[in-house]
Amino acid sequence: MSQGRVGIWFIGVRGGVATTTILGLVALRRGLIGTSGLVSALPKFAELGLREWSDWVVGGHEIRSTTLRDEAMQLADTSRAVDRDLVRQIADDLDQIDANVRPGVLVNVGNTIEKLADDSLRQVVETPAEAGARIQSDLKAFAAEHDLERVIVVNVASTEPAPDLSGLPSTWNELKPRLADAACPISASSIYAIAALDLAFPFVNFTPSPGSNHPAIEDLAAQRKTCHMGHDGKTGETLLKSALAPMFAARNLEIMSWVGHNIFGNLDGVVLNDPENKSTKVKSKDRLLGEILGYNPQTHISIEYIKSLGDWKTAWDHIHFRGFLGTPMIMTFTWQGCDSILAAPLVLDLVRFTERAARDGEVGLLTWLASFFKSPLGVAENDFVRQVQMLEERWSDDASE
Amino acid sequence: MSQGRVGIWFIGVRGGVATTTILGLVALRRGLIGTSGLVSALPKFAELGLREWSDWVVGGHEIRSTTLRDEAMQLADTSRAVDRDLVRQIADDLDQIDANVRPGVLVNVGNTIEKLADDSLRQVVETPAEAGARIQSDLKAFAAEHDLERVIVVNVASTEPAPDLSGLPSTWNELKPRLADAACPISASSIYAIAALDLAFPFVNFTPSPGSNHPAIEDLAAQRKTCHMGHDGKTGETLLKSALAPMFAARNLEIMSWVGHNIFGNLDGVVLNDPENKSTKVKSKDRLLGEILGYNPQTHISIEYIKSLGDWKTAWDHIHFRGFLGTPMIMTFTWQGCDSILAAPLVLDLVRFTERAARDGEVGLLTWLASFFKSPLGVAENDFVRQVQMLEERWSDDASE
Amino acid sequence: MSQGRVGIWFIGVRGGVATTTILGLVALRRGLIGTSGLVSALPKFAELGLREWSDWVVGGHEIRSTTLRDEAMQLADTSRAVDRDLVRQIADDLDQIDANVRPGVLVNVGNTIEKLADDSLRQVVETPAEAGARIQSDLKAFAAEHDLERVIVVNVASTEPAPDLSGLPSTWNELKPRLADAACPISASSIYAIAALDLAFPFVNFTPSPGSNHPAIEDLAAQRKTCHMGHDGKTGETLLKSALAPMFAARNLEIMSWVGHNIFGNLDGVVLNDPENKSTKVKSKDRLLGEILGYNPQTHISIEYIKSLGDWKTAWDHIHFRGFLGTPMIMTFTWQGCDSILAAPLVLDLVRFTERAARDGEVGLLTWLASFFKSPLGVAENDFVRQVQMLEERWSDDASE
Amino acid sequence: MSQGRVGIWFIGVRGGVATTTILGLVALRRGLIGTSGLVSALPKFAELGLREWSDWVVGGHEIRSTTLRDEAMQLADTSRAVDRDLVRQIADDLDQIDANVRPGVLVNVGNTIEKLADDSLRQVVETPAEAGARIQSDLKAFAAEHDLERVIVVNVASTEPAPDLSGLPSTWNELKPRLADAACPISASSIYAIAALDLAFPFVNFTPSPGSNHPAIEDLAAQRKTCHMGHDGKTGETLLKSALAPMFAARNLEIMSWVGHNIFGNLDGVVLNDPENKSTKVKSKDRLLGEILGYNPQTHISIEYIKSLGDWKTAWDHIHFRGFLGTPMIMTFTWQGCDSILAAPLVLDLVRFTERAARDGEVGLLTWLASFFKSPLGVAENDFVRQVQMLEERWSDDASE
Repeated sequence: MSQGRVGIWFIGVRGGVATTTILGLVALRRGLIGTSGLVSALPKFAELGLREWSDWVVGGHEIRSTTLRDEAMQLADTSRAVDRDLVRQIADDLDQIDANVRPGVLVNVGNTIEKLADDSLRQVVETPAEAGARIQSDLKAFAAEHDLERVIVVNVASTEPAPDLSGLPSTWNELKPRLADAACPISASSIYAIAALDLAFPFVNFTPSPGSNHPAIEDLAAQRKTCHMGHDGKTGETLLKSALAPMFAARNLEIMSWVGHNIFGNLDGVVLNDPENKSTKVKSKDRLLGEILGYNPQTHISIEYIKSLGDWKTAWDHIHFRGFLGTPMIMTFTWQGCDSILAAPLVLDLVRFTERAARDGEVGLLTWLASFFKSPLGVAENDFVRQVQMLEERWSDDASE
Repeated sequence: MSQGRVGIWFIGVRGGVATTTILGLVALRRGLIGTSGLVSALPKFAELGLREWSDWVVGGHEIRSTTLRDEAMQLADTSRAVDRDLVRQIADDLDQIDANVRPGVLVNVGNTIEKLADDSLRQVVETPAEAGARIQSDLKAFAAEHDLERVIVVNVASTEPAPDLSGLPSTWNELKPRLADAACPISASSIYAIAALDLAFPFVNFTPSPGSNHPAIEDLAAQRKTCHMGHDGKTGETLLKSALAPMFAARNLEIMSWVGHNIFGNLDGVVLNDPENKSTKVKSKDRLLGEILGYNPQTHISIEYIKSLGDWKTAWDHIHFRGFLGTPMIMTFTWQGCDSILAAPLVLDLVRFTERAARDGEVGLLTWLASFFKSPLGVAENDFVRQVQMLEERWSDDASE
Repeated sequence: MSQGRVGIWFIGVRGGVATTTILGLVALRRGLIGTSGLVSALPKFAELGLREWSDWVVGGHEIRSTTLRDEAMQLADTSRAVDRDLVRQIADDLDQIDANVRPGVLVNVGNTIEKLADDSLRQVVETPAEAGARIQSDLKAFAAEHDLERVIVVNVASTEPAPDLSGLPSTWNELKPRLADAACPISASSIYAIAALDLAFPFVNFTPSPGSNHPAIEDLAAQRKTCHMGHDGKTGETLLKSALAPMFAARNLEIMSWVGHNIFGNLDGVVLNDPENKSTKVKSKDRLLGEILGYNPQTHISIEYIKSLGDWKTAWDHIHFRGFLGTPMIMTFTWQGCDSILAAPLVLDLVRFTERAARDGEVGLLTWLASFFKSPLGVAENDFVRQVQMLEERWSDDASE
Repeated sequence: MSQGRVGIWFIGVRGGVATTTILGLVALRRGLIGTSGLVSALPKFAELGLREWSDWVVGGHEIRSTTLRDEAMQLADTSRAVDRDLVRQIADDLDQIDANVRPGVLVNVGNTIEKLADDSLRQVVETPAEAGARIQSDLKAFAAEHDLERVIVVNVASTEPAPDLSGLPSTWNELKPRLADAACPISASSIYAIAALDLAFPFVNFTPSPGSNHPAIEDLAAQRKTCHMGHDGKTGETLLKSALAPMFAARNLEIMSWVGHNIFGNLDGVVLNDPENKSTKVKSKDRLLGEILGYNPQTHISIEYIKSLGDWKTAWDHIHFRGFLGTPMIMTFTWQGCDSILAAPLVLDLVRFTERAARDGEVGLLTWLASFFKSPLGVAENDFVRQVQMLEERWSDDASE
């Protein structure tokens, strides 16, 4: 089947996750790397007709003034996670993608994120509606310039402080006029989501920011007959929780306390050092345990910025549980993972699966993508293996066709 | 539904696992402890009609001269896993059970196990057939004396060296006459299995010893229309492997090496310090990884006897894996579990589920008990959650009836 | 040499540390336990003429209404650190010691500690001078009743919030009149120190509270020709820091970051959950690294109350360091120690060494006790082994006499 | 003081340790790296008059046919420990040093090492005396060609199986004629030591191979008035043991068991996978614990070759100890160090200090270098800090002059 080209549009296109994703996409296209870490490259999805690496055109929004080449080289230098020689090999491709980058939106992103932004951008004053219009204009121009069949918009920008959206209406028709009000509490991630969905472009939220997680925005997606999913990519400690907690539950081993300490030193860490932004994140990480276990053990989650670690997020978890005869026992684990390296392939998986579902005409929340998210929207299942089964089952017919 | 009483017959009835199981069973009967660690006590199995704790009568074979009371007190003293006051409270019950203990069989168990045995027992010379007849006589007397509807025989004795059974025939009718030959290589665990199954008593093998794992013995079970399952209870490190390896597989994270070091200091450890016995065990622990992943990473498993640890089996696993862009990452975990405490509730679960299946008339291997075993007989599935689903599905209709 | 009896007077006599110390002292006296954990029982101090276990009479101040017997049994029940049978064996001795307990002082101890106190005690309103007079009356009565040659006062009470003592004068003659002022910011630990030193009773501060750490109180000790030392017993994570950091320094391995997470669930943990009290503690734990290394790496110390752990303080430390060619490397350690069990023998060591020094007529800070403290007063040396050498050298002549 | 140039002669010059040492030496000379990891670069040794990096000329013996440039690039590729760009920058220097490399000796090195050797070298049949003469000729040519004041010979070759030297005489005059016998059991490391010392060139043994550790060879060093030291560089797990065990000893905490598991995947690992070679190493690692503690706890040391780890030697140690009231407690640590990176600066330190001592006219074992070795010859002190004090004290006068 001959197909046209498709676009990925990153919110936060020069951040660590997007940069690594782009680096990997280009390297895959050029045959420089293998498919380790890519769920969508597993043999069981081989017959699905997912897009080839060469089908994708990349663009995005960014609030900082830097270049993909510089960001990629910095990842190589500070984190030892990316090979400097690989960056050199594909630097020209990175420069080309840089040409597709447009200035991002700072509406209600909070002080810590604002401080990272380019000066000129911090001067801009715009209502949510104005910002949304600007985004849509960027997206349409990108699609037109590259003659794209479809654009998947993915949010990989820094975590926003949680806005108070309780006063907002629950339908799109009521919400829309409110966006013209400068005092509307809606934040950038949701403005991007609205802009994308309104153009019938699927939206994927890889961060714990609100994004499309609001009834009125879900309503918009339904009206435009497009799909979306979120939120917060499940890359490390929470992934392990969703694999391990079901084991304790299935064995009736009572978890008395589960303590998780996370340390890392990338830009995300700087942002999460702000207690407001951190609270959004911790809430996302802490929820699933009670849902899997059916009771709420004492938990403690810390996230600390330790500069020397760069992109290497190290988690230490201490699980104190009680077995037969009430005997207390202990499991601890240490996870030394490179955050961007873990996230990037999942982002590629998500855009590929989402593009495939959009091609199928699927509308609304893509709940079968639950295994990719810490807090999968519309999904109560938190057992990782059962979430993976949801993915397999969604495509079991298509693959066998 | 009014029911008669049923029996548990332990092979190795005064070993750490059996002693802890008995301690727990009596304590449950008396309402002294909760149901932590018992899978069969989970709400989802509440409607299954599993036997009450008070329905069970306990007996068994043993090769050492000791008492349950002494063994229980020693567990309390050396391992801090069992409460000394609890042992005191139920010491009289333990003494009563001791009255149901009969001398075990040493045929082909190897030097290390023989050395543990009572002197008088080491004088006994018997063919497999003679040993089997003795066992059956013990089992029948036990069932008769206590007026038992059914007896479940469970092997929790020390791991035997692997016998070479390749020369044996594959049907029961051919095997039977061979048992009269003193040179028959069949070892104690299989003699017990044959003795039990031949009486139509279900047999559960909680150890890596051969037990019923031979075509001719499976044939016997089919002929007698009874059921059996094994082998090697999945209590600690391997349980974690079966919960974690599927996560790496589902995420396409390539495991380069998985190293597991196990240290512990109980009687099992003394026996496993003999390389012949250890090899049986390591084989059982090492198999599942390749089956889950679809390729064979470098693995190393060590099991070392460290006296000071007593029954606290500590495992340290180092998992070296490769993610996107070929980036190597590391997960390590430490498991500090008390071996008998982890095993005992599973033994109770197995006898309860097996008794229930026997009541149902199920014949042959109980493959839906896979989640309880390191090497589930007749089962290719090694993903723990999917094994748990096999258990749930087996009883999903019954429970909803 | 025939000697009279001597006293230990505990501030916080029914807390976890004092209870365990008393339990151990009685058990040593009765020959029920060995001398593991006791520095003063090492062969190198055998000739020093330290007091026998039977020489000591115990009393103390306490703010909670409970009994030593109950506290000891609770330690046994919740922490599995103390043997219940041992508590039963010596319960009568504990009751006798309870007769020597007097109501403690709540002046400026902060809300969190006040909440733990007996209601009647919380009604008491007294100036520091009045509280001090009450303490001295208790101490004198204790010494008289038991005909004691000397009493060593040891503070093992909960950590107070740091008071602001900057406005206080630096000599005893100036400070003394200020104690009659109800607004004087001095807190209980210092009032105890003053009361003791003023009677020429040596004072040891095992906690990070101020105690005798003030020029005016040091002046008092000098005037009364008695000795004192502090502060904050070095039992776990900090002990390891003082053993490991010198290794990194000696090898010129640059520490980039040192992260320490501490979790535990005893009463001390409840108190340290109050940020004001915690800050006193963290400051004491964080200081030594810079002093050993000669530069200040990024550090992070967390102390979290995790109820299920009871008295088992678990520390996880992550040390990120740079070696040759700037290569980053990692050491992590886990310390699973029982806090009271680690502290108790050090308390006995301190009172024995302090009593010995007092017998020698030593006056002022006992700086050669540095190895016992996180923040040894008047000592710049933080290398544990070099601190141990200070102890050895202090007594090298006496031992060889 | 104007000084001539000096030489370092490596046994095993293209192995991981020598290659990294050379890389670092060149990079230091060119100002491309800092002095992290170099003990001799600490301020306290600044006034000692140690040689500048530019003073050293490098040569060595090697049994494999490869190049320094290739070995360096492979370290960069497989271990992520060395920067590929750094190797490129100094590749020309590496080529120049390659010109000073001569074929090594295979006498009694065992099968595993022989297999690594160049084919042509494996054809050579020579007695120890002939091999020694060949080595001396190489050393003299090197010294002459570069006009060197002195050459320090350092053994960093793979660990040999332990030869049985019990039948050899204990004086040089008696040993010398025996070297002409092809059946003489002396192995390569000792032949190198003899060759060097006989020329009055100091010899340093960084490996657990015998080297100069024999009375007759010590006699030779004394006769030639030169110095030597060994053996087995203390880089990782044993370094930690010598820092931690004294802490347990000083606190009278009884170590019940100390288990150490080491995994790594470099060439050294291949060699140590041979049980004969491994036994030499384990003996060297296991000795010090009993010497520090004064009693022998149960120990277990494993060293396993895990290919994926490359040069990253990961050690997990589990320390089970008993404190007050006999309470068992646990410390574990994980050490993730790059073996060559840890060893290389110590090699530079050793040659600098040894050259300085030789300049001073010191003769015999340089016992004050104990802190650098797992098994310091002629030294009973195993406490790391006290060993460091020996180094400081040796030079305290010189530094202060």
